Amino acid sequence: MIVPVNLGPESYTIVVEVGALAGVGQRLRALGVGRRAALVTDAAIRRLHGAVVARSLEEAGFASTVIEVPEGEAAKTLVVAEHCWDRLLTAGLDRTSTILGLGGGAIGDLAGFVAATYMRGMNFVTLPTTILAQVDASIGGKTAIDHPKAKNLIGAFHQPRLVIVDPEVVRTLPERDFRSGLAEIVKHGIVLEQSYFDEVARDAPALLGRQLDALERIIGGSCRLKASVIERDPEEKSDLRFALNYGHTIGHALEATTGYARWTHGEAVSLGIAAEARLARRIGLADEATVTSQEALLTRLGLPVRAQQVDVDGVLTAITHDKKARDGRVPFVLAPRLGQFRVVYDVAPTEVRAAVQDLVV
Amino acid sequence: MIVPVNLGPESYTIVVEVGALAGVGQRLRALGVGRRAALVTDAAIRRLHGAVVARSLEEAGFASTVIEVPEGEAAKTLVVAEHCWDRLLTAGLDRTSTILGLGGGAIGDLAGFVAATYMRGMNFVTLPTTILAQVDASIGGKTAIDHPKAKNLIGAFHQPRLVIVDPEVVRTLPERDFRSGLAEIVKHGIVLEQSYFDEVARDAPALLGRQLDALERIIGGSCRLKASVIERDPEEKSDLRFALNYGHTIGHALEATTGYARWTHGEAVSLGIAAEARLARRIGLADEATVTSQEALLTRLGLPVRAQQVDVDGVLTAITHDKKARDGRVPFVLAPRLGQFRVVYDVAPTEVRAAVQDLVV
Repeated sequence: MIVPVNLGPESYTIVVEVGALAGVGQRLRALGVGRRAALVTDAAIRRLHGAVVARSLEEAGFASTVIEVPEGEAAKTLVVAEHCWDRLLTAGLDRTSTILGLGGGAIGDLAGFVAATYMRGMNFVTLPTTILAQVDASIGGKTAIDHPKAKNLIGAFHQPRLVIVDPEVVRTLPERDFRSGLAEIVKHGIVLEQSYFDEVARDAPALLGRQLDALERIIGGSCRLKASVIERDPEEKSDLRFALNYGHTIGHALEATTGYARWTHGEAVSLGIAAEARLARRIGLADEATVTSQEALLTRLGLPVRAQQVDVDGVLTAITHDKKARDGRVPFVLAPRLGQFRVVYDVAPTEVRAAVQDLVV
Repeated sequence: MIVPVNLGPESYTIVVEVGALAGVGQRLRALGVGRRAALVTDAAIRRLHGAVVARSLEEAGFASTVIEVPEGEAAKTLVVAEHCWDRLLTAGLDRTSTILGLGGGAIGDLAGFVAATYMRGMNFVTLPTTILAQVDASIGGKTAIDHPKAKNLIGAFHQPRLVIVDPEVVRTLPERDFRSGLAEIVKHGIVLEQSYFDEVARDAPALLGRQLDALERIIGGSCRLKASVIERDPEEKSDLRFALNYGHTIGHALEATTGYARWTHGEAVSLGIAAEARLARRIGLADEATVTSQEALLTRLGLPVRAQQVDVDGVLTAITHDKKARDGRVPFVLAPRLGQFRVVYDVAPTEVRAAVQDLVV
């Protein structure tokens, strides 16, 4: 499946295809970029997929260098970004060169930030290896590193030139990571398209069984939905792109108050969806059935909708630090019914507190 | 004089007006941005102009905080950028807030980079206090900090929301800094508009005497020319914006080989113009009169066109590290005649060497 992302001079395509990683060199060459490239990845992913990508680049005539960075969120520091800038300079890369980020969301965020800021912007290609990155993080040009006090505080919008999604690579993910990625898929269905939500529910067994055709169809569908949002609001300047933040306002706060250690991002988003679904119900925006069907699908996919011991005060404080804040007010994306969303600016703090409290078993 | 910069959704205006600094609060308020602001400046500039700006912001209802950074190029480090991000976070600034950079080119570059990367981009206003910054650095959205091995290596394109140019402030500049800024003014005339070049030549005495009407007219004219280039090529994607690099390929290399200490940026650009004028003559692109008139105006404005002891080998090596390099080739902007430019990609290294050698007295 080829998903076009129409953004005028910054347009690009998302290729969702089994085996696509082996074709990255040819597709990159077709863009007419310079012949130097850097592959940013971590040691574990390099062992799994590094050789395929390196061979593909070499066969297409690229001189490429590999920059190994720490695994996971540890890659998103200023120190690692500096290391990358040094390596790019040493390898003689210039503005016509390309950085390829091979890995999960963290590697994409870091590699994208480095690409956005090296010589004021060079070519960037994402090769996402987790479901989370394939359907969400790698599309849309959001790049960032972390500040010691706030995740993703330092970043830039920088659209990729190409996104290569190979559903084959997610078959080797550990079970917990695999399931975590499904939270963003469910999110897309809830706020953007009921028929897609239904499709995910129907395909749940095939998805959990990691059948390639189901993976390609569902992941591709999610990419299509995300692309449609990006096209209409590439830099988060309208309410539309807020839609993709569904489950994330409370989800991020849950992660922040537990040092990003207790839950995976997807698990936190799943809990965030459950809480925000309930919040919509509390303020009379959604009915009980809308809440229940969200929780039911998340549960079927092995994702949490309840938790023990939540630091409710901490979560409420963390919410006020949300990047979406506007002069101190935090907007919530809520779903009045499946396939719809509404941005609500003045949710009473007592309602938010009660919705978070609802999570606790 | 109001100079509009038409860039679609990123359009802004440049206000060139005696006393304009005192009106920054009102003009910022008219943009409808959030009520929090941070003023980035250094101690010396703060003493001269900080109070006027702070009062104007306060009277317009802004809650502002001042972030003091080191003077000159020392502000353009990752450590200083980190300090700014910390301060913004502590002061509770968000994406609707505004950073104002009050100072010369270095402060604008740093403040712009911080604004470009904090929460993936916040509002940015430039309040340039040097001629160099007023006619060149503050317009066009180029932001950057330095890498230990390469100036401006790390940066982003981030257009300001407003540029406030107050010709009054340059009257207090030290003589050397004042004259240095005139090099960019001469550059604009040479590559973009002969009639402006002639106007600068005619107004040279009034300009050197720092007469306000001449300053406003000439600085405003230079802003107009720069804006016309930015409008047609906001992200340096065509040859057009290269035009503004006239004198800079050799100029930057001269600075790099002398640790940015021997010449001011404007002096290095003046020498670069002299060398590149001669390079155009050497390869048969320009006639002798075109070279002579450039050198004559620079000399009348007190800018150098010859130098003693130039490290010619070092300059040639530094040129190959130019950010404009494309897969190893460095393009030169040359002026076939006054008011015109041409980008030449295959200048023989021997000709470049000879042109640099020509500088040596």
